[in-house]
Amino acid sequence: MGNAPKVALLGAGRMGQVHGRSAAANPRLDLAYVVDPHAPTAETLAAELDCAVASQDAVLADPALAGVLVATSTSTHLDVVLAALAAGKAVFCEKPLDLDLARLRAHAAQLASPAAPLYVAFNRRFDPNFQALQARIAAGEIGALESLHLISHDPAPPPPAFIPTSGGLFRDFSIHDFDVARWLLDEEPAELFAWASCLVDPAIAAAGDVDTARIVLRCASGKLCVISNTRRSGYGYDQRAEAYGSKGAAMVGNPRVSTLETWTPAGALAAPIHPGFQSRYAASYAAEVDHFADVLAGVAEPVTGYAASVGALALAEAAARSVASGAPVRLADV
Amino acid sequence: MGNAPKVALLGAGRMGQVHGRSAAANPRLDLAYVVDPHAPTAETLAAELDCAVASQDAVLADPALAGVLVATSTSTHLDVVLAALAAGKAVFCEKPLDLDLARLRAHAAQLASPAAPLYVAFNRRFDPNFQALQARIAAGEIGALESLHLISHDPAPPPPAFIPTSGGLFRDFSIHDFDVARWLLDEEPAELFAWASCLVDPAIAAAGDVDTARIVLRCASGKLCVISNTRRSGYGYDQRAEAYGSKGAAMVGNPRVSTLETWTPAGALAAPIHPGFQSRYAASYAAEVDHFADVLAGVAEPVTGYAASVGALALAEAAARSVASGAPVRLADV
Amino acid sequence: MGNAPKVALLGAGRMGQVHGRSAAANPRLDLAYVVDPHAPTAETLAAELDCAVASQDAVLADPALAGVLVATSTSTHLDVVLAALAAGKAVFCEKPLDLDLARLRAHAAQLASPAAPLYVAFNRRFDPNFQALQARIAAGEIGALESLHLISHDPAPPPPAFIPTSGGLFRDFSIHDFDVARWLLDEEPAELFAWASCLVDPAIAAAGDVDTARIVLRCASGKLCVISNTRRSGYGYDQRAEAYGSKGAAMVGNPRVSTLETWTPAGALAAPIHPGFQSRYAASYAAEVDHFADVLAGVAEPVTGYAASVGALALAEAAARSVASGAPVRLADV
Amino acid sequence: MGNAPKVALLGAGRMGQVHGRSAAANPRLDLAYVVDPHAPTAETLAAELDCAVASQDAVLADPALAGVLVATSTSTHLDVVLAALAAGKAVFCEKPLDLDLARLRAHAAQLASPAAPLYVAFNRRFDPNFQALQARIAAGEIGALESLHLISHDPAPPPPAFIPTSGGLFRDFSIHDFDVARWLLDEEPAELFAWASCLVDPAIAAAGDVDTARIVLRCASGKLCVISNTRRSGYGYDQRAEAYGSKGAAMVGNPRVSTLETWTPAGALAAPIHPGFQSRYAASYAAEVDHFADVLAGVAEPVTGYAASVGALALAEAAARSVASGAPVRLADV
Repeated sequence: MGNAPKVALLGAGRMGQVHGRSAAANPRLDLAYVVDPHAPTAETLAAELDCAVASQDAVLADPALAGVLVATSTSTHLDVVLAALAAGKAVFCEKPLDLDLARLRAHAAQLASPAAPLYVAFNRRFDPNFQALQARIAAGEIGALESLHLISHDPAPPPPAFIPTSGGLFRDFSIHDFDVARWLLDEEPAELFAWASCLVDPAIAAAGDVDTARIVLRCASGKLCVISNTRRSGYGYDQRAEAYGSKGAAMVGNPRVSTLETWTPAGALAAPIHPGFQSRYAASYAAEVDHFADVLAGVAEPVTGYAASVGALALAEAAARSVASGAPVRLADV
Repeated sequence: MGNAPKVALLGAGRMGQVHGRSAAANPRLDLAYVVDPHAPTAETLAAELDCAVASQDAVLADPALAGVLVATSTSTHLDVVLAALAAGKAVFCEKPLDLDLARLRAHAAQLASPAAPLYVAFNRRFDPNFQALQARIAAGEIGALESLHLISHDPAPPPPAFIPTSGGLFRDFSIHDFDVARWLLDEEPAELFAWASCLVDPAIAAAGDVDTARIVLRCASGKLCVISNTRRSGYGYDQRAEAYGSKGAAMVGNPRVSTLETWTPAGALAAPIHPGFQSRYAASYAAEVDHFADVLAGVAEPVTGYAASVGALALAEAAARSVASGAPVRLADV
Repeated sequence: MGNAPKVALLGAGRMGQVHGRSAAANPRLDLAYVVDPHAPTAETLAAELDCAVASQDAVLADPALAGVLVATSTSTHLDVVLAALAAGKAVFCEKPLDLDLARLRAHAAQLASPAAPLYVAFNRRFDPNFQALQARIAAGEIGALESLHLISHDPAPPPPAFIPTSGGLFRDFSIHDFDVARWLLDEEPAELFAWASCLVDPAIAAAGDVDTARIVLRCASGKLCVISNTRRSGYGYDQRAEAYGSKGAAMVGNPRVSTLETWTPAGALAAPIHPGFQSRYAASYAAEVDHFADVLAGVAEPVTGYAASVGALALAEAAARSVASGAPVRLADV
Repeated sequence: MGNAPKVALLGAGRMGQVHGRSAAANPRLDLAYVVDPHAPTAETLAAELDCAVASQDAVLADPALAGVLVATSTSTHLDVVLAALAAGKAVFCEKPLDLDLARLRAHAAQLASPAAPLYVAFNRRFDPNFQALQARIAAGEIGALESLHLISHDPAPPPPAFIPTSGGLFRDFSIHDFDVARWLLDEEPAELFAWASCLVDPAIAAAGDVDTARIVLRCASGKLCVISNTRRSGYGYDQRAEAYGSKGAAMVGNPRVSTLETWTPAGALAAPIHPGFQSRYAASYAAEVDHFADVLAGVAEPVTGYAASVGALALAEAAARSVASGAPVRLADV
């Protein structure tokens, strides 16, 4: 690993552990530090990953450090990223860059043409299934894309205490679908309409949020996209995408935990889909860290950064406004 | 067939031939007459089905006649039905009863509590697949229903000349989905929002219509339903329904023309879905004529009549208004 | 039906009812008589099918009669068929023509070049799924056929009392697979090896038969075919065929009773396959009666007659000998 | 990795690279040495895996070394394994332990109760799909197991030059199926019958081997197992298993490279299955190295060693004899 660029992990919580393990296992990166305000958390992960515990300031001051992986708490992402960029470090930032659209735009100067490469981790772009679908569409194999249907159904709702800090269903959860929609549509949505209900848990409504939504996007060309979201599917972690074009359709479904089928008089039972994002997206998490290695090696530009962050967040903002007003929202007004 | 009730077929066009053949093959009905303003059309079908050609007046005047199957041109449905009911004949009417909501409501007195049984043929309620889904939902097997997704994609657009007489995409085509939505939701939708584009054929836009739509329904309980429509799928006749509930999901897909699979390095190719409604819904067309035999035998009430017709047509009307206004429409206002 | 050829049904038991209903519903045939030694059985079916009860002698003496459908008890098939052919009547004979290979061959003169057309009803050749597979193979789409796997698993064993009269697993049950093998291989098998067990019901062993078998066929060209049989699957009526060729594979599976899928944490449950041959092969039974109408109309030669009967029965005989001897059997020796 | 046991890789060819990478990536093992008679091969892999190049003698003489992974050329496996065991090193041996049944049995004393743990890598036992099937059978969920069907079809034949050194189809290729059969049947097969052809490449016949086979196993209890093998499928790397029991069936199929489906008028095309063993069994290769870590940690006994090797090789020997003699072979005679 003598030539692998030295990187640090900032934040050793749930997603920090995921990205830290990917970085440690990737021979193209040299994970040198783990930073976390909670010392035992940092120490445990550093021990597992065979690297040092350090402070953020010390890490950013290390001239040998090439980049950082930011997986701190969401509310701190933007400040940490700005500090890292100011220190000239390449940044891998767990999504979202920030939950506040205005605040994000206020830092456009530092973020849109950053001093060092900035990758914001919309991991679904690295899922082999979504990639296969995008390649199929881009190759024109279904003709001109006319409509999309994106499904993201969580297996079970988060604890109610999480809701007030989440930014709401659209900024926290639908944000992935907004990014996928922008990527697959290959055209900026012009308008958005959303209806949302609270059907899963009254505590979510009590916290001012919704848990079940249908969102429609319309592009200037007439392309339509429906997003289907729920906080609780009752059957597993359901993430699908269907694309309809002038010559046919293409779609990606849910991988299953095995290819086992059981045949009884009740029918043929296929094995369950994955129970959560950790196993479903294991490959995409590793792949996006590998993409960061490409960025550090100078052989790739970050596929998603400030523009993708603002684009997806503006759609989330529009969805929230549409639900509040009961009317469609023009993206130009967001 | 000595005891089978005597019935007549009014209208020997495309759907008249479908229903006429079902009636002739059904041992519980005695198809006695075929009526059509175009004599050769009537004669050809009467010869095939081994019954007599007659005029509508003569048929309705036959005291031995128990019922009529109405498959005349859409614009005449209502007048023919009213005449048949006035003559005391049970009616099987190909959908729609009428394309004009106000006109339909104006005849509520004769249609809502008709002098003889009135069945309006929303055939999808007799498709074994949709029936299996409805039974599963009604039995509570997916818990409380929370959302629906209905897909109706035609294989290819109709000739442009048909468009001006069709009533438009929503009254002509989506009407089936509106009926299925009301049936599966088991709750009247309170609001509707629709966006529609013309992406398939500019001649459709020139005729003042749309060919691609996404419609969202919302019930007072918060249940949501998305309807996906296109006039041209590029891959066959696609009719599916997905139901999401508090405990899981259930869905029905497209039967295929065979169970053949072909394996090559490109993947596993499953046989095509049906190319059109004739083969896809052959069983449901026969089953709805059998339902009419039940109605004539006095062992069943018509499953769909005036109320279903008005309910579905009001949703179509709301969809057209929503597209025109760009805003959601309350069904109470339609 | 004035011009439809007049036919009679001989035998009104289980398969007689199936074929009688197909004949009555087929506008290209005029089913005039039902014959059965048990008068009430004949009368009930004749009433349902709106035709006359008659004796076999009277029927065969009717100069207006064009053909007979033979569905009498298996042990009488050959005598009835010979009588009908002698009377110049075209014959549709439910399989098998006879269970005794030597006896069948002894009548080769009358059966191989019969005085009137002789169709022996190996119904699987009229199943749309098997037909699709055969067409795919014949068209060369999987290259040169190299091996086959045929699966026939009954849902539940027959009553033990049936076993002694059945001819044994191979003559009664595997016979369909032997016919399908000959059809799909398009080359006469040269050798056969079989192993069989009694795993389902000891009463079957007590009756001198087996209930679970694996049979391997080898052609002179080296093509191999495995047949998998059981009297009790535990999950439904399972009938599949897989073909492996030099360029890929093609296979047909089991149609399901609907396209319903149910998603729960346990997985995705597809609707059951058919519970028995009646619903699974409804279309093929109707199609083979329609084939007989083609034969009577002079537009088709019977697809299977004496040669197919002897070919399949010789394989059954070889299987029984292989199980008895524990060694492969050359078909030339049977 | 301070506490991870020190291991060496013997053999840096195709499978050595697979196992070496798994060992290097496994934090529970400390891969210290790579050994290969061809120095550049050893050096390249050692550089990649960040470990030292050494000779076999030096490695076995290292008192700190806990175990070896043997992936040398097949003909040397047994000698290397015996030397490693004599040196007290735990052994992970790529299958087969040897191709000669008599030679293997001649070393039963050293191998059946070895001086150090001996794991022989039948990797399919670590495939999550096969494991799921085995667990389902073992849990009695399909009732009593009655029959098995194992399919192993290679995508394309090996170079003809490989054939003479391979041990033949049964010892080289079917050996995996023999191991899976013994594992899933949970009963030693008593008899075997095989037919084999050369349909893929005449050069294989010229080298004295076959490329297409059907093998039937029979147990004393009457359980039957069919194995289907070909050296060239024409559609990918096909590895499946179907288990039929008294209450139903369970089966595992081929994972696909993605969940992509493409819908056109020709049908629905699912993504290809894996093109070869490397990607299909990536998880199982890693899992078996992890099993070796368990063995070294003293928390597991090797799941397969001498007994499994002899059991599978005896079936291969029986298959070769059956093909040669054209008759079934009793395992007691092998």
